Amino acid sequence: MTTATFAPRGDTRAIEQGDEFQPKLDADGLIPAIVTDALSGEVLMFAWMNAEALALTIATRKAHFWTRSRKKLWLKGEESGNVLIVEDMRTDCDQDVVWLRVSVQGNGVACHTGARSCFYRSVTLGREAGPGLPLERKS
Amino acid sequence: MTTATFAPRGDTRAIEQGDEFQPKLDADGLIPAIVTDALSGEVLMFAWMNAEALALTIATRKAHFWTRSRKKLWLKGEESGNVLIVEDMRTDCDQDVVWLRVSVQGNGVACHTGARSCFYRSVTLGREAGPGLPLERKS
Repeated sequence: MTTATFAPRGDTRAIEQGDEFQPKLDADGLIPAIVTDALSGEVLMFAWMNAEALALTIATRKAHFWTRSRKKLWLKGEESGNVLIVEDMRTDCDQDVVWLRVSVQGNGVACHTGARSCFYRSVTLGREAGPGLPLERKS
Repeated sequence: MTTATFAPRGDTRAIEQGDEFQPKLDADGLIPAIVTDALSGEVLMFAWMNAEALALTIATRKAHFWTRSRKKLWLKGEESGNVLIVEDMRTDCDQDVVWLRVSVQGNGVACHTGARSCFYRSVTLGREAGPGLPLERKS
């Protein structure tokens, strides 16, 4: 696949109120992607897409990402079987983030640790932040 | 407030399975924050926090962010009255993202455009990505 090219960015009105997808990729060519479970609404994971991952996700409805650590394109679930089927993809007012509502295939696990969601710990609130601030495991 | 200092990053086991908050800030000193409605589960907005915004959010339970465009700390809702009260804050396996479940005060609007959520448009799926790819307004 050749490098995907999206529409150029328009003015503020086109970006915020327009009906053309004009995604903003950051200085590294990446856009943040929030992934939630289409049924429960739970946030499952957060990752990054480059233009190719974004285009492949749109065309195939299977979530693709760019791993910043391994610097490669990544079809989520390619090895584990936990492919993310995209039911709906939203973008925000600034068109610099995407939100994917997905169905998790396979055994329903989205996190590499084996947890259903990557967000399995809560941060203690109402305290001064600093070393020793506890996390509480939720699932 | 002096610059907030969090626990240093431990090894992979401490980060992924530990019970101490060891957030990773990026090269710009920022961490991404996903904000969802505590009742509906809808993603309301996505923004960035620096260490001070993160510490203030934890201590006060009111969501604070760092605006990259205006380069300043920002109590969300300070002007609009739409303060975000944090019911739960999660971090992910890598501790490099936070997810806030919030109650929106005031008139319940989270987006500067006046929309309840910033994510009011869907991207067309199942098509080749490129210029002209339509967005569909959802609310």
